[in-house]
Amino acid sequence: MFYLAVMSDSKSNAASCTPDNTVPKAVVSRLSLYLRELEHLTRDGFSTTSSNRLGSVLGFSDAQVRKDLAYFGHFGYPGIGYRCDELISAIKKILGTDQQWPAALVGTGNLGRALLGYRGFQQRGFSIAAAFDVDPTKVGLKIEGLEVCHLARLPELARIHRIRLGMIAVPAVAAQTVADRLVAVGVEGILNFAPVTIALPATVSIVGVDLAIELEQLAFSIVNRPDAGR
Amino acid sequence: MFYLAVMSDSKSNAASCTPDNTVPKAVVSRLSLYLRELEHLTRDGFSTTSSNRLGSVLGFSDAQVRKDLAYFGHFGYPGIGYRCDELISAIKKILGTDQQWPAALVGTGNLGRALLGYRGFQQRGFSIAAAFDVDPTKVGLKIEGLEVCHLARLPELARIHRIRLGMIAVPAVAAQTVADRLVAVGVEGILNFAPVTIALPATVSIVGVDLAIELEQLAFSIVNRPDAGR
Repeated sequence: MFYLAVMSDSKSNAASCTPDNTVPKAVVSRLSLYLRELEHLTRDGFSTTSSNRLGSVLGFSDAQVRKDLAYFGHFGYPGIGYRCDELISAIKKILGTDQQWPAALVGTGNLGRALLGYRGFQQRGFSIAAAFDVDPTKVGLKIEGLEVCHLARLPELARIHRIRLGMIAVPAVAAQTVADRLVAVGVEGILNFAPVTIALPATVSIVGVDLAIELEQLAFSIVNRPDAGR
Repeated sequence: MFYLAVMSDSKSNAASCTPDNTVPKAVVSRLSLYLRELEHLTRDGFSTTSSNRLGSVLGFSDAQVRKDLAYFGHFGYPGIGYRCDELISAIKKILGTDQQWPAALVGTGNLGRALLGYRGFQQRGFSIAAAFDVDPTKVGLKIEGLEVCHLARLPELARIHRIRLGMIAVPAVAAQTVADRLVAVGVEGILNFAPVTIALPATVSIVGVDLAIELEQLAFSIVNRPDAGR
């Protein structure tokens, strides 16, 4: 069961409507953004930063940054701010990305190929260790250095690569079956790109990415802007 | 300025912590899910449905469905439930997808190609009307029936195709420059796939999709499950 709760925005007092033991989902999303910016700062040669600087790049107030981080501990130093390396390590530990997360990709169509070529995963601690398809014209192909295997080999390769995550990039009609097979080999979480709702046991987490939904949310934000209809 | 606020989860009383004139972002996200399910139901031959049925497929309570829809009006009929076609039209109008949203894609690497081949956009009212790159080995190629044009032609083609949205699928270092060029030709919103925060004028909306961040959120939900550490 996913116990996170989407509860706060940058303007509300999250703590006031948060039940015990939950961290607002929006806070966890912002942690990822902080991590991304801290890594950019480190790459640019900065060893320390401030809540003010972190916030201003991301469009949040410094108070927001401090409040978010306060959910998880005390990270700043008086007169110094945050030590980038230290805060990066702390956030990775909170997010769980200090661990390895070998993933299986199922579906090597356009989107699957893009996922295989996506450099961002490796940089952030994720790796696609095995890729699967059932299309005989795809099985056996090498994409981005990884051989596409028949889905029948999922149990064997899941064991060998200690697969923990599954990525579903198959058509909607096949998504539930693929999810069931991923669950059967013990994945702990699924990133689902198929535009369909998948039923899973409560012990498996899921994040859905439906690109059309992202566009719909963008459309809504445009037609409902305070300045809309100028 | 994006005035939506992420404020509620399915368990909290959204109205109690929502300032006037805002709809919680989580509600708007769920509208997209309702729309997706309603379209599945229609395709399967159903002409009516209930809050109970809609909710159960998505893992929400019937009360949640009714409460979400109540933000926008009264849609159900006693003894009938919801008329699928009618609710689909209403949600599209709310989301703004009863309008046309011609989009420009910038970047035709792996991800850009996947976006060009993504069938889900067209089905949901979005279309990529023009594709751009600056790589001479890509300019002139035809991908999914669309010619890749040099980014220098953006102003001309934005006018011809009445481009309203931009999709950024270029490397992080180029994303801000591309965003600035999209803003200069008058796009109203940007879907940004580059793993970097982009600064935009308040009159342009943005939705960021960072696939590594989605995986981080999944990892967090796994390591923080109530049953974690069994």
